[in-house]
Amino acid sequence: MERTGAAAIIIGNEVLTAKVKDENGPHLIQRLRELGIPLVSVETILDDVDAIVDAVARARRKARYVFTSGGIGPTHDDVTVRAVALALGRPVVRLPEMVSAIQARAGTSPVTPESLRLADAPEGAVLLAQPGMWFPVLTVGDLFLLPGVPQLFRLQLETVLSRLSGTPVHLVNLYFNLGESALAAVLDRVALDMPHVAIGSYPVFDAAMDYRVKVTVEAPERAHVDDAVGRLLAGFPADALVRRG
Amino acid sequence: MERTGAAAIIIGNEVLTAKVKDENGPHLIQRLRELGIPLVSVETILDDVDAIVDAVARARRKARYVFTSGGIGPTHDDVTVRAVALALGRPVVRLPEMVSAIQARAGTSPVTPESLRLADAPEGAVLLAQPGMWFPVLTVGDLFLLPGVPQLFRLQLETVLSRLSGTPVHLVNLYFNLGESALAAVLDRVALDMPHVAIGSYPVFDAAMDYRVKVTVEAPERAHVDDAVGRLLAGFPADALVRRG
Repeated sequence: MERTGAAAIIIGNEVLTAKVKDENGPHLIQRLRELGIPLVSVETILDDVDAIVDAVARARRKARYVFTSGGIGPTHDDVTVRAVALALGRPVVRLPEMVSAIQARAGTSPVTPESLRLADAPEGAVLLAQPGMWFPVLTVGDLFLLPGVPQLFRLQLETVLSRLSGTPVHLVNLYFNLGESALAAVLDRVALDMPHVAIGSYPVFDAAMDYRVKVTVEAPERAHVDDAVGRLLAGFPADALVRRG
Repeated sequence: MERTGAAAIIIGNEVLTAKVKDENGPHLIQRLRELGIPLVSVETILDDVDAIVDAVARARRKARYVFTSGGIGPTHDDVTVRAVALALGRPVVRLPEMVSAIQARAGTSPVTPESLRLADAPEGAVLLAQPGMWFPVLTVGDLFLLPGVPQLFRLQLETVLSRLSGTPVHLVNLYFNLGESALAAVLDRVALDMPHVAIGSYPVFDAAMDYRVKVTVEAPERAHVDDAVGRLLAGFPADALVRRG
């Protein structure tokens, strides 16, 4: 698979056990879409070294940018740094600049061995200064290790995204009063003829709605979208289209 | 890895492109938790045959029950049945009972070749009658192919869950006014000594909260939870605990 776009890994026992509802995945999805960076997957997995190693290795094979959420901290369940290092085949090292930051933050309080775990990172890690936080963004190449706490995740995400660029997508929605079975043959043909345009078909089963199927047509090039929309509409009676938007 | 519990695969271009926010993953997480069926992962992936094959094969290796959401239907982007069949190494067959159901539902309208795609399933599939819907639940062994439309997903999920049984979990939450670095050494020790108890540590960074870290302690056996809670509390001054719940 071509390594473009992004993949996300939400490391969260607390999510999978319904203790908290994940906010970071949906937020990341929204922000990447706004920037035009395609997202290939969001995996929510347990705080388990093997599971994280596996997910990180696969994410790196299928996407250029990999975001992790969670498992960054000083306690026993914070295993993301170690797992990412394993996935990259790199040792974990203690970063002197993070040790200094932890000591500065502790002030006159004792610095515990556990608090120094925050200074551990895969070898080759680069820290990005995070405005508004003493804790920088931990990155290794195009892999970004973000904290699971939503307000911290959002702050650090913006610091990362400010360095990336994407290609915004043109999207047209077509709302039809036909069912999917009646639309399928035309959708098939246009999708096959225009592989560079993404066409989606989403039925609703609610008599209160004014349409039965929403068809989405999108591509980076507006002309390609317009072309596909024209071909689709040519395949149906004019009154099959409820509206477009 | 031991094959217990469940894994979920959300097949959704529309989710990953921020067109809709996934409701099925969070709902499944909640319902499995209520039933005490542990969930090992929720992967949201594209409507792509290779991606689905890979996700299904991995899910089956790590979990007994596999739930998919989406990609069930008559249009070009509905590739779940084909991908699941590939992952299982089985051919796709047309189910006569589904052909009959589709014909019955069409009544006097013509049955299009595309509408008959709904009758395709991996060989060996079993259909579960779905109260309130003409469309049954499509299952293959312990793999459940649910539709992506949330109200249909929920209906079919209950039909599946009524046949499964789990082991509800006992959970105690401990709210501390200490930071994670101060808690880490004791958490480490108890987590190491009691591998059958899951201990989680979740900091908050909001001065308006009355605590700094929530520690979760859970296990199927209540006595194990009580034991772990006792050991944790013995490791801290009495006034470190804000409350338990």
